[in-house]
Amino acid sequence: MSFDPSSLRFDAAGLVPVIAQDAQSAEILMMAWMNEEAVRRTFETGRVTYWSRSRQSFWVKGETSGNLQHLVELRIDCDRDCLLVLVRQEGPACHTGRRSCFYTALRDGEEVEIQSPQG
Amino acid sequence: MSFDPSSLRFDAAGLVPVIAQDAQSAEILMMAWMNEEAVRRTFETGRVTYWSRSRQSFWVKGETSGNLQHLVELRIDCDRDCLLVLVRQEGPACHTGRRSCFYTALRDGEEVEIQSPQG
Repeated sequence: MSFDPSSLRFDAAGLVPVIAQDAQSAEILMMAWMNEEAVRRTFETGRVTYWSRSRQSFWVKGETSGNLQHLVELRIDCDRDCLLVLVRQEGPACHTGRRSCFYTALRDGEEVEIQSPQG
Repeated sequence: MSFDPSSLRFDAAGLVPVIAQDAQSAEILMMAWMNEEAVRRTFETGRVTYWSRSRQSFWVKGETSGNLQHLVELRIDCDRDCLLVLVRQEGPACHTGRRSCFYTALRDGEEVEIQSPQG
């Protein structure tokens, strides 16, 4: 079946959550949002493109920082309301300079930083 | 810093998206939602507990099917508005009987099933 972005189940704001996973290491890098046009652009350009809810604009990941996300494969979940993008990430994915946004772990009830900003 | 679930940034519906990842294989299993109390219950019981938006009720993953998700580690993203749970998954995570909900991949513009229901 040919993929049609309009067949996804977008929420009331017209968005789907998107999980970005490193295609090689399988590390989860970040979670962000796409609207239908962002899905289309990601697919057509090979550069992962989100919809920024705060700025209300398209957000080509890494366009400013240079830390681009290159699309390796896009996957859809069973409910068609969440996407998984396998990516080749240049540099850190997190705006804090860390590889992943999920750098805080709970251990023994305490928040622990398990990743440092890259040098 | 001690973890306080109320310090998370919940959306207008009082929810955060939660990514479930197999703690051993690093496979992404599913994405679902938690409210503050679901985070608390997950943390206290060690059984991953979501908030079902369709049923508007707590949903101990696997309580009916037996396919429990045991919490291995909980991680928080930089914006504190998304969680990652590393889990030990009993049986399939997807209601279709597949290991992961993300069993549909786009290849050459076509939707391809890359995982079959478990026997």
